[in-house]
Amino acid sequence: MTPPKISPLAPDTFPEIPPISGVWMATSATGMKYKDRDDLLLMVFSPETIIAGLFTKSATAAVSILLTKKVIENNQGRCLLVNAGNANAFTGAKGNASAQSALSALSTISGLPLNTMMMASTGVIGEPLNADLICAHLETLWNSKGTANWHPAASAIKTTDTFAKASSQTIKYGDKTVHIGAIAKGSGMIAPDMATMLGFIVTDAKIEKALLQEMLFETNNNSFNAITVDSDTSTSDMVLLAATGASKVTIQPDSENAHKFKSALQQVMTDLAHQIVKDGEGASKFITVNVSGAISDASAHIIAKSIANSPLVKTAIAGEDANWGRIVMAVGKAGQPALRDKLTIRIGGVLVAENGQKADSYTESLIDNHMKSEDILIEVDLQIQDGVATVWTCDLTHDYITINADYRS
Amino acid sequence: MTPPKISPLAPDTFPEIPPISGVWMATSATGMKYKDRDDLLLMVFSPETIIAGLFTKSATAAVSILLTKKVIENNQGRCLLVNAGNANAFTGAKGNASAQSALSALSTISGLPLNTMMMASTGVIGEPLNADLICAHLETLWNSKGTANWHPAASAIKTTDTFAKASSQTIKYGDKTVHIGAIAKGSGMIAPDMATMLGFIVTDAKIEKALLQEMLFETNNNSFNAITVDSDTSTSDMVLLAATGASKVTIQPDSENAHKFKSALQQVMTDLAHQIVKDGEGASKFITVNVSGAISDASAHIIAKSIANSPLVKTAIAGEDANWGRIVMAVGKAGQPALRDKLTIRIGGVLVAENGQKADSYTESLIDNHMKSEDILIEVDLQIQDGVATVWTCDLTHDYITINADYRS
Repeated sequence: MTPPKISPLAPDTFPEIPPISGVWMATSATGMKYKDRDDLLLMVFSPETIIAGLFTKSATAAVSILLTKKVIENNQGRCLLVNAGNANAFTGAKGNASAQSALSALSTISGLPLNTMMMASTGVIGEPLNADLICAHLETLWNSKGTANWHPAASAIKTTDTFAKASSQTIKYGDKTVHIGAIAKGSGMIAPDMATMLGFIVTDAKIEKALLQEMLFETNNNSFNAITVDSDTSTSDMVLLAATGASKVTIQPDSENAHKFKSALQQVMTDLAHQIVKDGEGASKFITVNVSGAISDASAHIIAKSIANSPLVKTAIAGEDANWGRIVMAVGKAGQPALRDKLTIRIGGVLVAENGQKADSYTESLIDNHMKSEDILIEVDLQIQDGVATVWTCDLTHDYITINADYRS
Repeated sequence: MTPPKISPLAPDTFPEIPPISGVWMATSATGMKYKDRDDLLLMVFSPETIIAGLFTKSATAAVSILLTKKVIENNQGRCLLVNAGNANAFTGAKGNASAQSALSALSTISGLPLNTMMMASTGVIGEPLNADLICAHLETLWNSKGTANWHPAASAIKTTDTFAKASSQTIKYGDKTVHIGAIAKGSGMIAPDMATMLGFIVTDAKIEKALLQEMLFETNNNSFNAITVDSDTSTSDMVLLAATGASKVTIQPDSENAHKFKSALQQVMTDLAHQIVKDGEGASKFITVNVSGAISDASAHIIAKSIANSPLVKTAIAGEDANWGRIVMAVGKAGQPALRDKLTIRIGGVLVAENGQKADSYTESLIDNHMKSEDILIEVDLQIQDGVATVWTCDLTHDYITINADYRS
């Protein structure tokens, strides 16, 4: 049994992403793990660029996380090097030296200080990174960088991803235009907590650091932090939002401009988050879990995650089985306030259970077609208070096992 | 692909369980869900019997849990009716009426008060229980009950279980003998929280209620509460410990007798808990996760559960892949204090990682044979403080998907 080469939930085409002034990209193939494809990405930002970042809360975070976090905190980021196939995580002093060696070489070639160099690495954990394979490509990368290389960039950062993920938005401010372009990767080990696998978002808006970080944090909560593939959180999650300012449009806090920008940013982030779920290892269904009526949004989020992470719910959906009893189980096990006889469950918009039992109006034939579709909607209303949350996930299939009983990630 | 009829990890034979005075059992076949096998068990206890119980903390607990919990609280338990194939959970007023109707009929036939009747139900959630199918068998059950029917009893309570689970211990107190006999069921939806699927333990020791409950609680923490198959907690978990007193051996609190009894009870409970993991849906490996050096036992338990519940760790073991990077990931995501550069990881007793990287002495060939065996040992020492915990689980295989994408549980 071979998993499909491309997820059945993949978008038909790679989106059109406009070139964004103030950022340049180049890709190359090191042959480190993957053959016949690019696996190294360089992003270079103009001196005016402000960068916000969110990072994994893992207690075993990778070298790249520790290094890049510091550069973001010091507002010094100019170059970002991304390699795919080796996470350089749990590689100790050796891993640290490898990363330093690659970034030192890049610093020399670019003429930019070492403390402006960032790195993101994903792939196998525990194998020392071979810096030489990277260093051999840095001069070519530096000399070949351009502004419109979104598709090769999104492709170069893939690991078990079956398709390249990108999204963009254009915002009009009078006669000026602001662009947002973004790429992401992720397929397994997806249960982001404060950040996701890798997500790199660039805009030509001009935004101060505090506001940029705040908008990234808030939009992240409703996008990358609201997805789960397998409940496993990576050592290497990172999402960066870079504002080059090249559009000359300044976004002020609490302004109408900020509102418009944040709304477009949310769309980009949510689009990317959905693409990651749609490339969830072995995924054949995209599942939206809406929880309402909880005692708080946080409580609703825990219940939605409990449903979205339940292997029994996910396998039932893989089998196109309207097994709502497993949703009841997942609500029950979440450890959050819930009243058995008050909660209602809807699947595909159809009322399935209420008053502590199957709804009188419900028969399975009502949702047969919905269960066979690629987009599954589960709604649980606890009817206690006003807490709401949405979480997106995918089903759990044989292909997940096939991929993960073999792949060394 | 058809899952094996019997788990490859099943014991070779059903254990010898002595008859225990003060308890009688009988089984029957209602045909409710399963064909050609018994699916109904009656246990009757002598008037002197004291019963302790632990129940699921699920917010969507089944009717049987609510009913039986009350009887145990009031110290009135005399009859226990167990049906397999329908959990009578989330069946509202109808489900309540079904259970009451079965128990009323049993009360009439036995001549015992209704408030001494207990029930345990597992199987599909959300389908009303057909009480008539049960009532038709109660008179025969009552008339045919005996003291030595452990094997048919353990078989009758199975749902997706592939083998009948039982355990026993004999304790000598001078010239007197105390027996413990026990049965359990469970295979999927296994992440007990205060109790497990179903476990029924009977002893002929004489033990007061408070001590009995305390010993059940404590031994449960190191047995049923320390296992997980799929991180999903059932609506119907229940474990009962009945002491008939027929041996005339009295167990006093804080006595040497109590110490001996508790130790034997722990062995029975742990044996049953291991059998449930060994019958985990699709299991091909039995996995022991030992965590030490945590800031507390509770913290060690959370980290051990994080490893044991990680789909990526479980699929790696299914693939006989010594992918210790995924163990690092699972420690990191647990949200508990851990220092990347202090922790050590051992697989099959072999040091795999230390000082924040792969151990110098480690090569995969050292644990090749261990990974191919049926018993996998993972040890993580955080080296911070003295907190320890052990959790048992099984691997995650294609058969888990096959079973759960079809079975309506």
